[in-house]
Amino acid sequence: MSKEFALPVVRNSVDTIRLLAADAVEKANSGHPGTPMEAAPIAYLLYMKHLRHNPTNPDWAGRDRFILSCGHASALIYSMLHLTGYDLSLDDIKNFRQFGSKTAGHPEFRHTPGVETTTGPLGQGVAVAVGMAMGGQYLAQNVDDELFDYRTWVICSDGDLMEGVSAEAASLAGHLRLGNLNYLYLDNKITIEGDTALAFSEDVGARYLAYGWHVERVEGENMAEIDAAMERAKNDPRPSLIVARTHIGQGAPNKQDTHDAHGAPLGAEELALTKQAYNRSPEESFVVPAEVAEHMRSCLARGAELEKAWQQQLAAKQATPVVADWLAVANGDLPAGWDAALPEFAAGDNKATRQASGAAINGLAPNMPLLIGGSADLGPSNNTEIKGERSWLPGQSGRNIHYGIREHAMGSIMNGLAHTPGVIPFAGTFFVFADYMRPAMRMAALMGIAPIYVLTHDSIGLGEDGPTHQPVEHLASLRAMPNMTVIRPADANETVEAWKAAITNRQGPTALVLTRQGLPTVDREKFSGADGLQRGGYVLAAEEGDLRLILIATGSEVQHALAARETLQAEGVGTRVVSLPSWELFEAQEQAYRDEVLPPACAARVAMEAGTSFGWERYAGSVIGMSSFGASAPAGELMKHFGFTAENFVARAKELLG
Amino acid sequence: MSKEFALPVVRNSVDTIRLLAADAVEKANSGHPGTPMEAAPIAYLLYMKHLRHNPTNPDWAGRDRFILSCGHASALIYSMLHLTGYDLSLDDIKNFRQFGSKTAGHPEFRHTPGVETTTGPLGQGVAVAVGMAMGGQYLAQNVDDELFDYRTWVICSDGDLMEGVSAEAASLAGHLRLGNLNYLYLDNKITIEGDTALAFSEDVGARYLAYGWHVERVEGENMAEIDAAMERAKNDPRPSLIVARTHIGQGAPNKQDTHDAHGAPLGAEELALTKQAYNRSPEESFVVPAEVAEHMRSCLARGAELEKAWQQQLAAKQATPVVADWLAVANGDLPAGWDAALPEFAAGDNKATRQASGAAINGLAPNMPLLIGGSADLGPSNNTEIKGERSWLPGQSGRNIHYGIREHAMGSIMNGLAHTPGVIPFAGTFFVFADYMRPAMRMAALMGIAPIYVLTHDSIGLGEDGPTHQPVEHLASLRAMPNMTVIRPADANETVEAWKAAITNRQGPTALVLTRQGLPTVDREKFSGADGLQRGGYVLAAEEGDLRLILIATGSEVQHALAARETLQAEGVGTRVVSLPSWELFEAQEQAYRDEVLPPACAARVAMEAGTSFGWERYAGSVIGMSSFGASAPAGELMKHFGFTAENFVARAKELLG
Repeated sequence: MSKEFALPVVRNSVDTIRLLAADAVEKANSGHPGTPMEAAPIAYLLYMKHLRHNPTNPDWAGRDRFILSCGHASALIYSMLHLTGYDLSLDDIKNFRQFGSKTAGHPEFRHTPGVETTTGPLGQGVAVAVGMAMGGQYLAQNVDDELFDYRTWVICSDGDLMEGVSAEAASLAGHLRLGNLNYLYLDNKITIEGDTALAFSEDVGARYLAYGWHVERVEGENMAEIDAAMERAKNDPRPSLIVARTHIGQGAPNKQDTHDAHGAPLGAEELALTKQAYNRSPEESFVVPAEVAEHMRSCLARGAELEKAWQQQLAAKQATPVVADWLAVANGDLPAGWDAALPEFAAGDNKATRQASGAAINGLAPNMPLLIGGSADLGPSNNTEIKGERSWLPGQSGRNIHYGIREHAMGSIMNGLAHTPGVIPFAGTFFVFADYMRPAMRMAALMGIAPIYVLTHDSIGLGEDGPTHQPVEHLASLRAMPNMTVIRPADANETVEAWKAAITNRQGPTALVLTRQGLPTVDREKFSGADGLQRGGYVLAAEEGDLRLILIATGSEVQHALAARETLQAEGVGTRVVSLPSWELFEAQEQAYRDEVLPPACAARVAMEAGTSFGWERYAGSVIGMSSFGASAPAGELMKHFGFTAENFVARAKELLG
Repeated sequence: MSKEFALPVVRNSVDTIRLLAADAVEKANSGHPGTPMEAAPIAYLLYMKHLRHNPTNPDWAGRDRFILSCGHASALIYSMLHLTGYDLSLDDIKNFRQFGSKTAGHPEFRHTPGVETTTGPLGQGVAVAVGMAMGGQYLAQNVDDELFDYRTWVICSDGDLMEGVSAEAASLAGHLRLGNLNYLYLDNKITIEGDTALAFSEDVGARYLAYGWHVERVEGENMAEIDAAMERAKNDPRPSLIVARTHIGQGAPNKQDTHDAHGAPLGAEELALTKQAYNRSPEESFVVPAEVAEHMRSCLARGAELEKAWQQQLAAKQATPVVADWLAVANGDLPAGWDAALPEFAAGDNKATRQASGAAINGLAPNMPLLIGGSADLGPSNNTEIKGERSWLPGQSGRNIHYGIREHAMGSIMNGLAHTPGVIPFAGTFFVFADYMRPAMRMAALMGIAPIYVLTHDSIGLGEDGPTHQPVEHLASLRAMPNMTVIRPADANETVEAWKAAITNRQGPTALVLTRQGLPTVDREKFSGADGLQRGGYVLAAEEGDLRLILIATGSEVQHALAARETLQAEGVGTRVVSLPSWELFEAQEQAYRDEVLPPACAARVAMEAGTSFGWERYAGSVIGMSSFGASAPAGELMKHFGFTAENFVARAKELLG
């Protein structure tokens, strides 16, 4: 076996991978050379032998997935993509980390062909990989097990495995027995502050065994050993962790095994010495020997063949209803009639928006077979259950995922599911715990992928659980995030519209912010239709007589705006109520529409929202909000205490009108 | 051994704990009865035998600490506090979860005597406990090992151990061999969605062994077994995990071992049946038998004696310099001369504020022996190292903590350190990764404790690492959080002032937001002094002639405001520059001062900040900020691309002035 790796061209290829990466970092005068250098043998084995991929079609749905979780080692993946024939030139590598180049500092999804997901923030890649493996398993079990027998491979570092998100994800992956998931862990014993022994002396392998994983230990330069371990990993029904003892900066005579090789160029002198150590000319840079180029581009023929066989399978099966259904949505289109069974609610009902959301989910699910739900152990509270569908259990990919009390992994796994062609993931937790998964939500926003968060118990209106469970700053903190759409519907029918908006927005994540407590369902005969939500904000109740005042509210406070308007109109004050469930959707409208809803001439505006007033200055001069945390008490008392009442709306309006 | 627990009064006490909790939940019609019921024997053993505490003085510095990490089981701790003689009456228990009562929905620090830290968000308590144990070890090793031989005890649930933050914290605790830390884990096999087997089948004990912990397994109703395990835990040099197989709702005939016993009252009927099962009258509520009251209040005499012995030790040692130094700061006062060695920087230097921060830290450290630093493996980048001081290694409590790549645990551990009398913790990470520890930062803000976050690489100004590492929305998202003080200094001398503000603010956390890149040190002869920072915002450069325009900026953009002012003044436009490093400090000033800095009459204001413009409407009609994520490129190019230049300031100002 080991003979196959003793060929000079193999060694030469591995060294080319290392040195291309080191040259790229050197030229950019910025980046991380050490990890690409240590990981080259593993990356070679992966791309050349184990990974089923087609460099000319990185989007081929049947491909194996590869994630470089230690995204700072980006020069590694760029070396591999170039050498194996992806659309990434040597010039791209020379432009490493420059404005607009394909070779960004960390690998970026949709920016570089062959990059499956954006990585860099440690722990995200390994956790997203769990979601990708789940997505593959879901398609295999529910669409076709031959077409979707793909595997997810990960190269990761000690930083990835120290992060809590990876621990959560690994526990779930072991539980669910994701045999299609393999981690290659670069155990290099070095972190930025020095030896990993400064902070990290646990037995990682034993920990993963405790999670129910298959664990292998290999030497990072022993290609035969690594190859055999990868082979066993593919055949094990459990997820696999291959612990590879590697040496950061492998081959750099003075910097190998030191943190100097981590986050800065090797420096001209050390780089020259390194090249000498690899029997290369110290003067030449970005060298790809002809035999290496030819050898590594064998991936092109292998990839073309792999995809061809798959496409033949697909052609043979495409008439099967379930495969046809998948094909119809694989490129991001919605299935025909997806919204046909959404509910409509009669006026007057006292319904929590979380309940309306549950009804909306169950209206969508029958017509959207790849809508997959779940919750971080709050399903009954979040109303996220798809009724009549199975739980996702070990070996059984159902549509209701029990993420456990693991919000952060849930967020990252949703990203992995969102990367799966055709799949739309949603999942729930309490709104306050959005903080736990915020780093994953940011990654979704950054990548422009579109998981849907069901965030219930959205204010002090949750009552007795008190300030630890009462979101205050969360609306502002999510609205501040680029490409995150936040929607806080005012009643049951706005909630249905919010779900429509979330489903049709496939360019970024949507956060649905929902009440625990019941809210009156607005009479849409008397006031405007809930479809105004699609524009983010709309005139829910027009003024009678001249417009003198605008009351703006979201969610549970809209009822108070309507009640306050009654009082004020009775006193002859022309009062308009604007429901503003989504700032992002509203700000995406043309100026004319926005001015129609909020005429610039009318400066007398009072806004109310049961959360921090931070940011509301954009819309209103007078804001009824919070500047402190909440308290533990029944919801009604809290709402009164903090001033979220119709009376307070009226009082503030009168103050403003003088 | 087991005879001691066979006494009728012991059983009666344990049952009283359970039933008081169940009664409290029933009366409030809200809360969690099941966990207090299962945990009663453990809580009894802890409070009555193992925990060194004095109910009449919950602040006694030498006490053992106890954290109920599963804070939703708050009725348990309230039962214990009442029965063992803390200042918490039976009426308080009857007012469970009512406005203003001492018995909030989740245990709240400073709100209820005997509650060591606020819990509820799962995983926080167990991680804070690691910080408390570290704080105790630090005092033992660096002040006095007899006075501070206290232990930290935790009761926790499966939810706590599923959360990633607890995994990070446990890995570090095992590494550091915190023998003074003991977890009592209620392994009840039930979560909200059903059996834990839905989502959680890992071998928790094996995982903790892999972390280097001592692990015991006991039956939750076998008091002799639990007692023996606790005894062994106290004598083991490793942190200990006692896995207790418990039964949620223990003794409730129809709800035990079901999730119906988790988050809702048992209901009148089931509660009556439960009381019958415990041989109590089903009609009576809130019953504390006289023998139980007497028996459990033995904690008072035991506690008084324990504290008396400790106070005698303290009296004997209080003249020792190191003990005297501790006494001087134990109640939160700062040591005399704490700021005597802070640096001052000459004008013109090109110094990153992270560098100035490093200098400030090393100016403070010699005069503040209980200032303890660290970083999540970014020490050299965050400039957080206290020079000449030791690393915190296993068995060696140094002042430089290597948290590893575990930001979330770092945040929680800092909270535990901040709970340690006299200790002020600070620690660093990249600003963008504040998201990873946001839930812990929120807990600090909520509790009003005061760790200091050193958040470097604060904008696109970090350059090539790209959008995954470039904070955009982070200033807004932290400013939105109640009781969080955010400071983004403009130069080296403002950075020193920012450290002063952070040190003197002992009522809440401070986030210091610092550049990677060099910034010119402002000429304070020519412009105002940096001490203006203490008021949050100040006139850095006054207008010449009539005030026509105000340029507002923070951090790295202040230099552009000064340069733009030069240009505009040369053209005769009276231009003021306001440096606004901290909104919170500014808004704490009286209105007159704020109007002096930002005269309401001058509406021509342009603000610039290299982050989202979200929230800036509060101060300026025209804002130069970002609405998207950043990109990977050299910092200078990015700053130009996104418009953070003096030229753009000038252009925008002219646009505004017409």
